[in-house]
Amino acid sequence: MRKHPDLTTKRHAKADFPVSNIRRYLEPGPIVLVTSVWKEKVNIMTMGWYTVMEFTPSLVGCVIASGNYSFGLIRSSRECVINLPTTRLVDEVVGIGNCSGQFVNKFEKFGLTAVQASAVAAPMIEECHANFECRLIDDSLVKKYNFFIFEVVKAHVAPSPKHPETIHYTGDGVFMVAGKTISRRSQFKPQHL
Amino acid sequence: MRKHPDLTTKRHAKADFPVSNIRRYLEPGPIVLVTSVWKEKVNIMTMGWYTVMEFTPSLVGCVIASGNYSFGLIRSSRECVINLPTTRLVDEVVGIGNCSGQFVNKFEKFGLTAVQASAVAAPMIEECHANFECRLIDDSLVKKYNFFIFEVVKAHVAPSPKHPETIHYTGDGVFMVAGKTISRRSQFKPQHL
Repeated sequence: MRKHPDLTTKRHAKADFPVSNIRRYLEPGPIVLVTSVWKEKVNIMTMGWYTVMEFTPSLVGCVIASGNYSFGLIRSSRECVINLPTTRLVDEVVGIGNCSGQFVNKFEKFGLTAVQASAVAAPMIEECHANFECRLIDDSLVKKYNFFIFEVVKAHVAPSPKHPETIHYTGDGVFMVAGKTISRRSQFKPQHL
Repeated sequence: MRKHPDLTTKRHAKADFPVSNIRRYLEPGPIVLVTSVWKEKVNIMTMGWYTVMEFTPSLVGCVIASGNYSFGLIRSSRECVINLPTTRLVDEVVGIGNCSGQFVNKFEKFGLTAVQASAVAAPMIEECHANFECRLIDDSLVKKYNFFIFEVVKAHVAPSPKHPETIHYTGDGVFMVAGKTISRRSQFKPQHL
């Protein structure tokens, strides 16, 4: 399969984005796809349990259950990429969450394109709206809560649409799809924006 | 002001909800209002940086910046209530996030109704769709990251609508409003629902 021409074209569609502002995409709480690699084993997992923790350094705290194949890859490599899917990937998101990387290569199974990241070895998912390259900076709560704290060291975001139609998991197989946006900017104090 | 008759009526509109399933409301990532009390000082703050961490015990991890008036109340009382507002409260949410409880009583300023919780001293906000009573169970990351881990000990949820129109903060004064829902239940393995 000749992937490179497409890859090049598509990849240029994403632009560097300030890591201090990733709350723009992650604070609304969409389901994300986390990619990782360790000793030639690559994987993708779905993740809904995470939070922004700081602007600078750009921190994200994530629960990655120890039963997941990705748990070992990420704990060993101390890296991952957080990829932001939109509605058109909902079936891939569900499929990825319902099989294990121990048995399948999920990039192949779901026809997703792995793109080399800049600062980490974990691959980025081309088809996602944004990719956030992460390094593990604090594993002190991994043993007790499976809670990893990552620093986002590089962010790539497609410039449009400005508000991607993300999907938000409510449990029980049901997703809420991002709806309209409303601005209350004029009611904010500048320091609270 | 005669509040009690209204209060009683409204309060009965909410039902007990299993604490192990609060991901239903919190995993999609809505902005929430956190209430707290300590030595007769009461406050409400907006919060967008939090994550579900476990089903049982029901755990939620939250970033509460030390500059917030609520930080001291919650660290001292070791309790709070996480309240779930919907679109009709967006102006109250913005107002609450743009003033400090050090100077105003936010319940009075924003015309919200404080209802006594069952398991904690912090008040619940009547006008919110759901109220989650929380006890602080781990403060080991408070000093370093302002990160509090709470156990949800009691949950109250309005039975309808089933999918409340929550608001999700994207920064810069802009909220995403929860849109339609889509089910992929049939594609899930039972243990992954």
